[in-house]
Amino acid sequence: MTYACPVPVEEKEVITLSHGSGGRQTHQLIQTVFLPAFQNRWLEMLHDGAFLTVPDRDIVMTTDSYVVQPIFFPGGDIGKLAITGTVNDLAMCGAKPLYFSCSLILEEGFPIEDIRKVVDSMQREAKASGVHIVTADTKVIERTSGKNLFINTTGIGVKWSASPINPLQIREGDAILLSGDIGRHGMAVMAEREGLRFETPLLSDCALLAPAVEALLQGGIELHCLRDITRGGLATCLVELAESAQSNFLIEEETIPICNLVEGACEILGLDPLYVACEGRFVTFVPAGQVAQALAILARHDPLLPACQIGTVESAGSLGSVTLQNGFGTERYLHRMMGSLLPRIC
Amino acid sequence: MTYACPVPVEEKEVITLSHGSGGRQTHQLIQTVFLPAFQNRWLEMLHDGAFLTVPDRDIVMTTDSYVVQPIFFPGGDIGKLAITGTVNDLAMCGAKPLYFSCSLILEEGFPIEDIRKVVDSMQREAKASGVHIVTADTKVIERTSGKNLFINTTGIGVKWSASPINPLQIREGDAILLSGDIGRHGMAVMAEREGLRFETPLLSDCALLAPAVEALLQGGIELHCLRDITRGGLATCLVELAESAQSNFLIEEETIPICNLVEGACEILGLDPLYVACEGRFVTFVPAGQVAQALAILARHDPLLPACQIGTVESAGSLGSVTLQNGFGTERYLHRMMGSLLPRIC
Repeated sequence: MTYACPVPVEEKEVITLSHGSGGRQTHQLIQTVFLPAFQNRWLEMLHDGAFLTVPDRDIVMTTDSYVVQPIFFPGGDIGKLAITGTVNDLAMCGAKPLYFSCSLILEEGFPIEDIRKVVDSMQREAKASGVHIVTADTKVIERTSGKNLFINTTGIGVKWSASPINPLQIREGDAILLSGDIGRHGMAVMAEREGLRFETPLLSDCALLAPAVEALLQGGIELHCLRDITRGGLATCLVELAESAQSNFLIEEETIPICNLVEGACEILGLDPLYVACEGRFVTFVPAGQVAQALAILARHDPLLPACQIGTVESAGSLGSVTLQNGFGTERYLHRMMGSLLPRIC
Repeated sequence: MTYACPVPVEEKEVITLSHGSGGRQTHQLIQTVFLPAFQNRWLEMLHDGAFLTVPDRDIVMTTDSYVVQPIFFPGGDIGKLAITGTVNDLAMCGAKPLYFSCSLILEEGFPIEDIRKVVDSMQREAKASGVHIVTADTKVIERTSGKNLFINTTGIGVKWSASPINPLQIREGDAILLSGDIGRHGMAVMAEREGLRFETPLLSDCALLAPAVEALLQGGIELHCLRDITRGGLATCLVELAESAQSNFLIEEETIPICNLVEGACEILGLDPLYVACEGRFVTFVPAGQVAQALAILARHDPLLPACQIGTVESAGSLGSVTLQNGFGTERYLHRMMGSLLPRIC
């Protein structure tokens, strides 16, 4: 009897259309690249889906595709982003991440060695978050640049807290907290793409937000709403929330922490840091009486991050707006980002 | 107070990088294309994830990305495929589909009118299967041909039956049933791509398999295993199952239904129909004593499909193989597809 023994995929090999045909080459790629990295009993069954038992019938589900270019950037890569981004979306719903799917679209000509690096990054972040990648898919598309790899991760989790955490819970008088300085991810990716160099390396802020959220909830902080800052930056994030909550937010511009490298790069390039993407920062809305306690928890959680209060929810019942007040008391409305500041940063 | 009123996206507009920036254009696309099509209370919250209550703590999760080219083909389009494919993967796990995520990667220059058509197809199939699209994402990539649209759908469902349905349940003596004729999807897409024309139109077999599986289970059929035939065709599907089940399958070649159009096109192009993709056919393994009953249920379910027994599980405990016996009694082993017969057919 002949049996097609899996042949190891050699280093420096590249993706061919055959890897997406569902036949022997697809099988080899799964056996030699994906299964060894993500090993768990669900994936190893090689079935059409994963049989899971969740700890509660109330679950949270979220999805994101990642198309960042270049796929390796200072402080991370597309694999790290694909796990942290989806973990963070669950965390913003107040949910502990549990089970993820992972679907890769590979371009013909993409180096298999680079897939290994990306998959290793994914597994590292998954392990750090207690996430299992239980079901997966791989497709191959025709070559253009040979540099493209797209990842979708969809995650399910269960809520840490019984209290609802969403934009409709935002209340007049709530303090608006920001978990750290803004714009590092967007500027790190743009600098890498444009070949800009800084004296001190500018690293992406790409990070898991679930531990900080869990710490706040365990510390008894009444989180009314959470939102991570991604595409569109802090400004777009706040405008979206103000509209969903039908409230007015008053933001004090001088309180918003921006590191000198991001500020300098934005000045040179004529960009507004309020619209530059982050991948490891969030805003949260808490009762005014809990601000000091919440900031103390965030400071203990990561002493290097300048978490702070950036504003207040002024009134409810409007169509929703965000007012930015500068140090001289001058006010202007913030709007969603117009046009395209930084395409493909996540 | 100024408020950015959503401006309707006009027909014949195309996707720009701004539609992926997370700002105003992304918001318009969501408000004018996705929300009206998929409307439900989960998506309308515009939050980072969807809060769901599943009927059982035991759930099934599956994921698939769809990259078919051309995106419109005889008998379907990428939107129909993106729902039926993921519904079918859940059905093959014996699970009723419930909640789906949907993530689109759009290419700069892609016509917005075509997105509407695709999204309408998705919604039509979702409605037919009782599925809600509860969380979504959109990304934009730089232009190459302007014709690319990639969709990921990830689905969760709950099991119809308490009995396990997976390759490890395959038993010696089981009958191997096939739900209809093979190869129509792959040949329909290839014909469209290559500009081949037939006297009678050859339509994709793309279809929802959940109703047939539910009918078999409700009819008391003991389904040991289910697998839909996709990339790699019937041959690859059987080889994968034989290896997972560590069994030998004996398949009688003359019993496999192939329509005259597929047979003719395969002869002209020198393709083996056993390796051509389907998107609406499955194999199932049932006790020998239930064959007549199972085929009667399938015939009632869709009288036009030539469901039939194609083989038998001969023995367990081997490394797994598939023997194909022709009308003269000559036998040969089937292998996984080698190379790339039809890239990007799903």
